[in-house]
Formats: sequence, structure tokens, C-alpha cells
Amino acid sequence: MSVASPGPLSGPLAISLGDPAGIGPELIAEAWSRRDSERLPPFAVIGGAEILRAAARSRGIELPVKAIASLDAAGDAFAAALPVLDLQDGAWSPGAPSREGAELAMGSLAEATRRTVRGEAAALVTGPVAKARLAEVGFDHPGQTEYVATACGIASGDAVMMLAGPRLRAVPLTVHVALAQVPTLLTRDLIVRRARIVATALQSDFGVSRPRLAIAGLNPHAGEDGRFGDEEQRIIAPAVALLREEGIDAAGPFPPDAMFTARAREQYDAALCMFHDQALIPLKTLDFDEGVNVTLGLPLVRTSPDHGTAFDIAGKGLADPGAMIAAIRMAGDCAARRG
Amino acid sequence: MSVASPGPLSGPLAISLGDPAGIGPELIAEAWSRRDSERLPPFAVIGGAEILRAAARSRGIELPVKAIASLDAAGDAFAAALPVLDLQDGAWSPGAPSREGAELAMGSLAEATRRTVRGEAAALVTGPVAKARLAEVGFDHPGQTEYVATACGIASGDAVMMLAGPRLRAVPLTVHVALAQVPTLLTRDLIVRRARIVATALQSDFGVSRPRLAIAGLNPHAGEDGRFGDEEQRIIAPAVALLREEGIDAAGPFPPDAMFTARAREQYDAALCMFHDQALIPLKTLDFDEGVNVTLGLPLVRTSPDHGTAFDIAGKGLADPGAMIAAIRMAGDCAARRG
Repeated sequence: MSVASPGPLSGPLAISLGDPAGIGPELIAEAWSRRDSERLPPFAVIGGAEILRAAARSRGIELPVKAIASLDAAGDAFAAALPVLDLQDGAWSPGAPSREGAELAMGSLAEATRRTVRGEAAALVTGPVAKARLAEVGFDHPGQTEYVATACGIASGDAVMMLAGPRLRAVPLTVHVALAQVPTLLTRDLIVRRARIVATALQSDFGVSRPRLAIAGLNPHAGEDGRFGDEEQRIIAPAVALLREEGIDAAGPFPPDAMFTARAREQYDAALCMFHDQALIPLKTLDFDEGVNVTLGLPLVRTSPDHGTAFDIAGKGLADPGAMIAAIRMAGDCAARRG
Repeated sequence: MSVASPGPLSGPLAISLGDPAGIGPELIAEAWSRRDSERLPPFAVIGGAEILRAAARSRGIELPVKAIASLDAAGDAFAAALPVLDLQDGAWSPGAPSREGAELAMGSLAEATRRTVRGEAAALVTGPVAKARLAEVGFDHPGQTEYVATACGIASGDAVMMLAGPRLRAVPLTVHVALAQVPTLLTRDLIVRRARIVATALQSDFGVSRPRLAIAGLNPHAGEDGRFGDEEQRIIAPAVALLREEGIDAAGPFPPDAMFTARAREQYDAALCMFHDQALIPLKTLDFDEGVNVTLGLPLVRTSPDHGTAFDIAGKGLADPGAMIAAIRMAGDCAARRG
């Protein structure tokens, strides 16, 4: 993966707290405590100062918090304290999600998004939320990705989720649908539209000058010339041909099980996958603790650690900060490349 | 994975040549040349002496071949030469599959199977064949697994394919069918019947005293309580419950993307997967060059390297012998455990 070096950032990153009963707050605190060794760009958290302090203590981190009234102040504060925008707060009750906590998570997300859209932050990093909890307090989007897209004025179908780890970037073209629905949802146009967005974002945000896209088949062995399944011939191969005509370096459809070996991964910059687990199985198998969920196709840069709230281990010092740190670093790098 | 130590073998392994234009012959020769460093059990090839010698030369191996009339003679010959049962032979034309080659492959498979069924060999290792080529010369089985099952008098549905690498054992419950067909093929009884065979074989052939089976979901996040897909509730969970009632240590259905991390893999001895790529993607991602295809539920032990004929690289010295060596070692280990 060829990578151009990033320039300076226009401001701090804005991090939403995530559900305060989950592992988000402790991982943000952990990331701040490692800001020097991990060379992280300046960031500020939107709300939750007391929660962050308490969550930090549970991991043995004495966390200095600097309440700030505007994100302008984050850069100067960051070296000595975690800047927290002085908004909502609450009590820390790890592993015990509540209505109040969900409201805080929703408010933090809304404010972080709003300020990034306005240009007060260089990029947005969202902490992990529980979708079912958010729905209970009136959040009517399938997930944070769709919320952020809508806030940016982008159709949620044109906001593309990419999972990125140190060894693989993978884009699932269908996500939270039954496997039985997948073949009915795939179209040539879906693949082409998403592939264009991925190719553009790899250039603008990831510094890949000529992105190589590997397009997966749907069926075992990519159908073996139609012997089991014809989606490759009917939908995927025509999409690849169309992309190539446009000058996009797309190849495939490839047998899905052969796409994720070390040798195969050297041949492409991102894999376009037909369904959730075709992308997520290899990603989590290879890069479990460092996977970043990044939204492509938006006017702003948005990343998120690729894990959930993990209520069962919150506050126990067990959660691995790798994905949060990777999400912060990637947000900074992408924003810097956009300049 | 707890593993009991194997006992002595009752005879040599019988190895079928595979398609002579593929990478099978050169990998068998390579395995023989590493018999000491890899501590491989004695094996004999069924036919193809000249082909083996020529294929060996292409890898810089001066291969002494000992023509034997019966497998009894293989044990004594093995230290100094590769024992080859004196049957069919042909010319070596790597990368150029032919009708003659397919007939040789079919004859070698038939004879290797027959002799192993009769007890002349301790186990059967099959070299890679091209199914379409075999079909052209009258082979009317979907693959070698079904052929061997039929030769053993076992219904092919009760011969279970397991893919085994150093880091993962995975059993795909459906194999070479369109992805769209998978949900229609899954039944509680299919899962239960196959899981019983896997549990029994892990004990008898792999020395796992109390096998732990992890059963995958079908849908992303295992359906999230029926939010996307109900196969977990309708089919898979009832199968797990039934297996547990029988005293089999089965667990699941698990979110497929979370099952193959290093931590998750510590919790089970084999993963039962709902479709081909759910098993093959993690297996090849983790253990590409060492995957073994082993058939469970047969009266004999049968393994095969988990790769194809690779006509494109045959004779070029590029093919990795890891899977062939692993298949030979595993066949010997499994046969020795059966005693």
C-alpha cells in the first residue's frame, strides 16, 4: 500500500464519548495516556469529563481533564490534559447501561458531528454505542455511519463503510441483512457506485495514488463459471468491466477464500466484499484488536474503533485500546492528507 | 487442542498420484526428499514412476524410485527410495492436462482406495485432481471425497470434509452450492448428524478426549435475535441444544466474524460452519500453505492437501509442499491413533 505523508491538521479531532457504560471512555483515556508513545494527533472529547476521569482510574490512569468551552482550546491543552468540551456529564456505571447514558451518548455524537461539519474539528472519531439503547431514546438511524452521513447531507447509501486493519482493508457491500437476502441486494450499479467512492477515498484520504480494487465473488470458487451461482457472470464481472472502462484498476471476481492470503493481499489496496462476514471474517481473523471502521464518501473524515460497547468487560481493565488508538491515528492521517 | 500420542502404523500410507500434469507428483517427490527432517511415516505412490522421477528433477531432486509389486514391500524400501506400485505410468507434461493423464489419475485413485479399503495401507492420501478432467473420462462423483466414501460403502452425506491447519479445524456443512441455496439446505438434522461424526472423529483420529465444537451462525452477528435472519433460532440453536442433550460439548450459534480470532480459537477443537467460504476464508487466511482436507466418518483414514492441481505453476518449482507434507503427517498420525 503506497502511502503519501500527511500534512498538518486544521484542528483537533472531535471524539464522541460512546455509551458511558461501555468501554469507550476508558479507551479514550488510555489513548490520551499513550499520546506521546503512539504519536497521536490532538483530540478533544465531547462531554463526559467525570465519566472519563472515573473510567481512567479503573485502569490505573490519573487523568487530568481540561474543560474547554470551544475546540479551539484543545490544541494547547492536549499535552498536559485531556481536553473535554464542557457539556453533558453523568455518573460512571460500567456495565450498567441506562437511559441517561444513552442520552449522553446521543448528545455527544450529535455535538461532535455538528462541530466537525462546521469545521471546528479536523475529523470525527466516534466511540462505541449500543444501537438498541440509542433507539430507545429516539435515535432513528440504523447506526452512527448513517447518522453522520445524514448530518453531512449525503444519502446514507453513498456513505461507504470500510474496515481497515494493518493487513487488510475490506468494504462489505451489504451489511446488516440476512444472508438469504444478500443475492437479491447485489446489483451491478451498487458495486460500481461503491467502488468509485472507495477508489476516490483511497486517493484522497489514504494517499494511494493508483488504487487497486479486488472484487470478491459471491459463491464458492466464484461460482466456477456458473456451476454454482451466476451472480459472478450476471452482476459482478460486468461491474468489474465497467469500472475498468472508467480507468479504475478493479479486478475480479475472485474466489472469496483465496483473496485474503498474505500473497493475495499484496495485489490490492482494498477488497470489495459482497456481504458482511466475507469482509469481517478475514478482517477480524487478521487484525482483531486493531480494526478501524472508516466512513468513505463524506465531506468529513470519520473513523471509529471496529468493536462494540463490550458492556461485559467495561471497567475491568481488560479492553484492548488498539482499535481506538488506530482509529484516532487514522482519522488524523486521513484529515492531514485531505489538507 | 489436547492430543494423545500416536502408536505404530500397520503399514505404509497409499498416495494417489493426482493429475500428472498438476503439482501433485512434484510435491510427493519433495515430501519424500524431506522424509527425515519432516519425520514422515513410510508411504508408497500408486503408479507413475517415470512421472515422479521427471517431476522431481524439475525441483532439483534426484529421486530414486523403487518399483514394488505389493505395498508390503514399501516399508523396507522407503528409507532409500520412493516406493511406487508398479502399475500405470505415462509421460510427464506439466501444465498440459490430457485425457491420458486423467485416466492415470483416476486409475491411481481407484487402486489406492481399493488397497486401503483392503487393509494393505494404513491410510489414504489423495493427490490433487481436476474434477472437470476426471468427469471427461467417466468419473461420476462430485469429488474424491464422495468417491472414497462410496468405495467404503458409506453414504456420501455421512462422509464429512474437515479442513485442518495448524491453527484451525473447520467443517463446512454445505460445500459446492450457490450461496443463495445455502439457507434452503440447512436443517437441524444435518447439523446434528455431522456434528456427531466430527466429535467421534476428533476422539478416535485426533486424540481429543472431550471435543469442543463451536457452531457458527449463518447471518451477520448470528442474526441479532432474529433481526436479520431466523436460521439461528429456527435451526442452529435447536441443533446445539440437541447435541448438548446427547453429551456433546457443542456451543453456539456464534457470530461468524468473531469465531476465528486467536482468543476464540482457543475455546474449541473444531468449528462447524454453515457454508464453504465461512470455513475456507479463515482457514486459508490463517493456514494457506498447510491446510489439509481430511474426510471424517469413514472406516479408513483419508487426507488430501487442501489445494488443487495448480496447472499454471506445475513443473516450475514454485509449488509449496507444506500442505502435502501436512496431509501425509496427519494421515499417519490419525491412522496411528486408530491403532
